[in-house]
Amino acid sequence: MKIVLFGYGNVGRAVARLIEVRRSYLERIGLYPKLVAVADSSGVAINPRGLDYSKLEEVKQKKGSVGFYPDCGKIGVKAIEIISDRLADADILIEVTPTNIVDGEPGLTHIREALKAGLHVITANKGPLALAMPSLLELARYTGREIMFSGTVGGGTPFIRFAEKCLIGDLILGLEGVLNGTCNYILSSMEGGLSFEEALKKAQRLGYAEADPSMDIDGWDTACKIVILAVHILGIRITLRDVYVRGIRDVTEKDLAEALRRGSTIKLIGSVDSMGKATVIPIEIPRSSPLAVPGNLNALTFHVEDLGSITVVGKGAGGVETAHAILKDLIELKARLRSRSMAT
Amino acid sequence: MKIVLFGYGNVGRAVARLIEVRRSYLERIGLYPKLVAVADSSGVAINPRGLDYSKLEEVKQKKGSVGFYPDCGKIGVKAIEIISDRLADADILIEVTPTNIVDGEPGLTHIREALKAGLHVITANKGPLALAMPSLLELARYTGREIMFSGTVGGGTPFIRFAEKCLIGDLILGLEGVLNGTCNYILSSMEGGLSFEEALKKAQRLGYAEADPSMDIDGWDTACKIVILAVHILGIRITLRDVYVRGIRDVTEKDLAEALRRGSTIKLIGSVDSMGKATVIPIEIPRSSPLAVPGNLNALTFHVEDLGSITVVGKGAGGVETAHAILKDLIELKARLRSRSMAT
Repeated sequence: MKIVLFGYGNVGRAVARLIEVRRSYLERIGLYPKLVAVADSSGVAINPRGLDYSKLEEVKQKKGSVGFYPDCGKIGVKAIEIISDRLADADILIEVTPTNIVDGEPGLTHIREALKAGLHVITANKGPLALAMPSLLELARYTGREIMFSGTVGGGTPFIRFAEKCLIGDLILGLEGVLNGTCNYILSSMEGGLSFEEALKKAQRLGYAEADPSMDIDGWDTACKIVILAVHILGIRITLRDVYVRGIRDVTEKDLAEALRRGSTIKLIGSVDSMGKATVIPIEIPRSSPLAVPGNLNALTFHVEDLGSITVVGKGAGGVETAHAILKDLIELKARLRSRSMAT
Repeated sequence: MKIVLFGYGNVGRAVARLIEVRRSYLERIGLYPKLVAVADSSGVAINPRGLDYSKLEEVKQKKGSVGFYPDCGKIGVKAIEIISDRLADADILIEVTPTNIVDGEPGLTHIREALKAGLHVITANKGPLALAMPSLLELARYTGREIMFSGTVGGGTPFIRFAEKCLIGDLILGLEGVLNGTCNYILSSMEGGLSFEEALKKAQRLGYAEADPSMDIDGWDTACKIVILAVHILGIRITLRDVYVRGIRDVTEKDLAEALRRGSTIKLIGSVDSMGKATVIPIEIPRSSPLAVPGNLNALTFHVEDLGSITVVGKGAGGVETAHAILKDLIELKARLRSRSMAT
């Protein structure tokens, strides 16, 4: 499996590392991944014989870009050129550039061009999916390629795979969840008496929140995830503009204290029902609800015919966790390709 | 798929019904299940052309046994004779007779003889697995047949499938859970101020607890489930006698009130670690723990290397829920047999 990796930040580096660390396990199950090209925002490194993880790390840490990779690095070359100019012969694109919900770029073009060029795509980039998931799935079907994205929701906690594999044959009536660890951390801290501003600063200090926290606290990150779940799990054709979104800026510590007195708590809940009604809103829920998870945990409840409500709880996104989701997609991709080749 | 169904109580009837209700869905995915024999404790019904669900229900409700099925029912014939005397030509045994943890019978003999006779086995019967799981798995491997049991733990909440499918490639370090809905209902009621005796009576009145509640409240049901999880998910060869078991009889409403004051609660927790240490004990846990689930819910936490703790929460066993687990095993069995035949 010849892989190109677009994005060499937190997630991309964890992916490269995990492929290295798990190599003997992967080979045991018949997977021989080879990183033939890596791109970050400043440059690319391309080598058909495979790039070396420790060298990638060295140039990234010391010089700031994989474009300084000895002999086969190039500064100023854009990721997309690897595909458009066929600079590398590859089977799979792992796309982990930063999420952009305005126009989905550069990830959207990366994914489209990769599918058209005959590559399978594994991505943890929510922007392209939130804005154009129905058409991307169609393109993948048309080109006969796979597009996998289990790292977009829940990071290491396998929400998407759970629905795909464990609820097979079940009728899922709707779903709702706490899908943003930053918001949950802030709300949990406010429950402890901090104001919104104090809680946000604390989250930023601990690295849970970005310098520009809007994507998280205004609910857009959660909304992206709800779109991905709605399209993929409920089969509803929506995009980000169809979601009613309200973030947590207006929640006060007084609201939380009052909720607490009533035996409840406030969480930023993203939800979608089988009619396609999708919302992201801070909601008061009982403290005994499986969604009332503390700290920066994530939780997702599936409402299933005959089986009632089933909830999965775990850590949200982080570089290492998301890399694990991507590795599982890689394993699953191999299995799908194998069963395709057996069927023909 | 020619199926024999042993056990026509709560679960068995729900299985027969679900196969009927879901027939068109099953046929769409290539499954043509035919019930060729059904047995309950009083008799059997056998028809190679397939038994009719509504007739089975009619004789069961009106006369108390499937042995009264018109033309092809027989009272006094034992389930095992269907296999030992080859009274029916079948591919699959669905074994849902009552759990017996003293000697595992009659389920243990049913499963052993079915595997030896070349049938695949799907079971929701915890007794045979808790007492002899390592040897049953070995027998299945030896005979080249599948044994599936996702209905033994969690009923409709797919704990076992979650570990199999969603944690693929992960190192599971241990697991712990609230696995008995009756105990959880009793403890939750005691938290509301009832005594153990009052809570037990209430659970019995609502049908959550058996007339003889020992299997639940003394922790044996939880212990059976821990054995099944330990063997199947952690690969540890233990049986029921290796589990340290203490039930909830000695927990008082005062204990619960004090725990509540400390921000915690008491749950009957079954656990096993990677060294094989398996216990079932009432434990005080924080109310914010994902295992602090209310009412008669079940919850299971997997401790996973790199990913932290992932918890699945849902309803426990019930006839309908367990039937869903069995149906999923049937779908999975078909997929496994298909990929086997493609591989040869």
